[in-house]
Amino acid sequence: MTDNSCSNGAQQQRSDMTDAELFDVHFEELVSELTQRDLTDPALADALSRLAEVLRYNAPGGKRNRGLSVIGSLRELVPPSQLSPDDVRRALLVGWCIELLQAFFLVADDIMDASVTRRGQLCWYKKEGVGLDAINDAFLLEGSIYRLLRRHCRGQSYYTHLLELFTETSFQTELGQALDLMTAPPNKIDLNRFTEERYKAIVKYKTAFYSFYLPVAAAMYMAGIDSEREHHNAKSILLEMGEFFQIQDDYLDCYGDPKVTGKIGTDIQDNKCSWLVVTALKLVTPEQREELQSSYGHSDEERVERVKALYATLDMPGHYRQHEDESYQRLLKLIESHADNLPHAVFLNFARKIYRRNK
Amino acid sequence: MTDNSCSNGAQQQRSDMTDAELFDVHFEELVSELTQRDLTDPALADALSRLAEVLRYNAPGGKRNRGLSVIGSLRELVPPSQLSPDDVRRALLVGWCIELLQAFFLVADDIMDASVTRRGQLCWYKKEGVGLDAINDAFLLEGSIYRLLRRHCRGQSYYTHLLELFTETSFQTELGQALDLMTAPPNKIDLNRFTEERYKAIVKYKTAFYSFYLPVAAAMYMAGIDSEREHHNAKSILLEMGEFFQIQDDYLDCYGDPKVTGKIGTDIQDNKCSWLVVTALKLVTPEQREELQSSYGHSDEERVERVKALYATLDMPGHYRQHEDESYQRLLKLIESHADNLPHAVFLNFARKIYRRNK
Repeated sequence: MTDNSCSNGAQQQRSDMTDAELFDVHFEELVSELTQRDLTDPALADALSRLAEVLRYNAPGGKRNRGLSVIGSLRELVPPSQLSPDDVRRALLVGWCIELLQAFFLVADDIMDASVTRRGQLCWYKKEGVGLDAINDAFLLEGSIYRLLRRHCRGQSYYTHLLELFTETSFQTELGQALDLMTAPPNKIDLNRFTEERYKAIVKYKTAFYSFYLPVAAAMYMAGIDSEREHHNAKSILLEMGEFFQIQDDYLDCYGDPKVTGKIGTDIQDNKCSWLVVTALKLVTPEQREELQSSYGHSDEERVERVKALYATLDMPGHYRQHEDESYQRLLKLIESHADNLPHAVFLNFARKIYRRNK
Repeated sequence: MTDNSCSNGAQQQRSDMTDAELFDVHFEELVSELTQRDLTDPALADALSRLAEVLRYNAPGGKRNRGLSVIGSLRELVPPSQLSPDDVRRALLVGWCIELLQAFFLVADDIMDASVTRRGQLCWYKKEGVGLDAINDAFLLEGSIYRLLRRHCRGQSYYTHLLELFTETSFQTELGQALDLMTAPPNKIDLNRFTEERYKAIVKYKTAFYSFYLPVAAAMYMAGIDSEREHHNAKSILLEMGEFFQIQDDYLDCYGDPKVTGKIGTDIQDNKCSWLVVTALKLVTPEQREELQSSYGHSDEERVERVKALYATLDMPGHYRQHEDESYQRLLKLIESHADNLPHAVFLNFARKIYRRNK
């Protein structure tokens, strides 16, 4: 193990910090580790400077929920007395690996979706002088995950589990992105593709695996829990939560308060396979369906308003509330039946952050 | 281990095939394994069809030298009597993983370089309806590597070594690509960037690690050779070979016979940091340097011819022959001093294929 990212002195100073504060502090350490202490061939200096820039622009700035869930879950799974400062540091590190995985996907997705802004700043590929070189930068973000795991977790019994978990989750996410790209290609509006079955598959593969199962599964492996049965059961619960999370995201895109969510939704304009349109399609009359077909996926205000008016006629907020209640009840039952020996708090803490959120 | 890619009967039939023939046969098995027997959720059917298409378009069609080197090296490292049919099958599989890694890089590089053709066909991203979705397709090619390793090598003692080898080599290649992109950005011609030091760094990281060290290192791990010293020494030899290989590639781009190489070189037009321009820059007078500065990196025939005339004046073919001889001698000495207990044939077979090649 070659883990020299902080001295004992530094650890002492940090004992009064929250996990969220520790997590933020950890980021600069990780950048200097990757770009100054990992590969040290002087011939790589320019490439490593680029990596530092790419890391700083793209990895922080999100909500960090995924990254923080690793240490959060580990604290539920392991009694405080059995959690060493090194265990905590490794959990923060693995949390950052999840944030790096997300950054890898977002940098690439923004290119594929021709997006302009992300997290309140220009998308990386839109920056002057970056352009499609951002594709290789995305690879570097992904590659950093395995450098960090190697440096910090190589000696741990769960090392290979983590390598498999990250590669498997990446593949699932990429399959989800492939489904998404073929379901809602820009400029080809075909509501027939927007089925509930397709919607659920995209959400499960593109979002739920890496956002919900990955952080908890990583913590489980770090806590020594590696039975297939327990992972299977935790996955059932977490994928259900992930699905609800995305449905809520879709709902807030249209009905959220931009002052609270911090973003102005454009799912209607962007021809997105959103829960709202998928659910509306199950409720419409043939005439309403034609109205939707001619209005959805266009950027002019008039057609956007026509879609919103149709959503109001169909009482989408009411359907959403009903769905939220049902999903929450289903989740509680799933936790009851599938949590096995795992403390329910692992899942309930997650659920509490998600249900009835407004941003 | 869940390896059910061929029955004993199929193995029997194949006993009289060469490794190259076996390798080719293996490809279709691998496609159906990845797209029909690995993930079987029906909701993924469309995404898996896409994967099959991406695999078939982008993975075969190359020279397959890298892929075939795994089984070739393994046969030098392990006596025939100790090599089971399963060992052979796994070596072919790992060979395909290297071809998949290469396909991943090529699909992405072609987008970043705005290339038009590759291996005698349109670049994948140039195909009707593909475009930048090719970025996600590249990810799927990379992700397939880890699915295959998991399915075929999970039970083997060298499994984690292979996971680390592939992730480490990917990262090195990505750093090399970053260096290359910043050294020769399109439309910015600055010969000052074309130093010998930078040239060697790009070649080492972007090409030599994955093309030369990776296949032999994989075979070494599969043969149970995992000492750091032996890998370090093999790496010294193979990176030297990789550097020579690229220099030769650069030479053939200008001086090769298109009827033999199968391609028309465009390094001069494309402002490539080629061994020829790097070496020429060490030999030129100030006037010749100005001539080069004004002619290099443009697509008009007249300026290309001026660069070629300058190369002729400087006797680049003579310098190349001299370099080839010196490099070959250096390599033989390196093999003598660094091969340790490894059979020299592992390296000499490789060298024989490379030196004095004309395509």
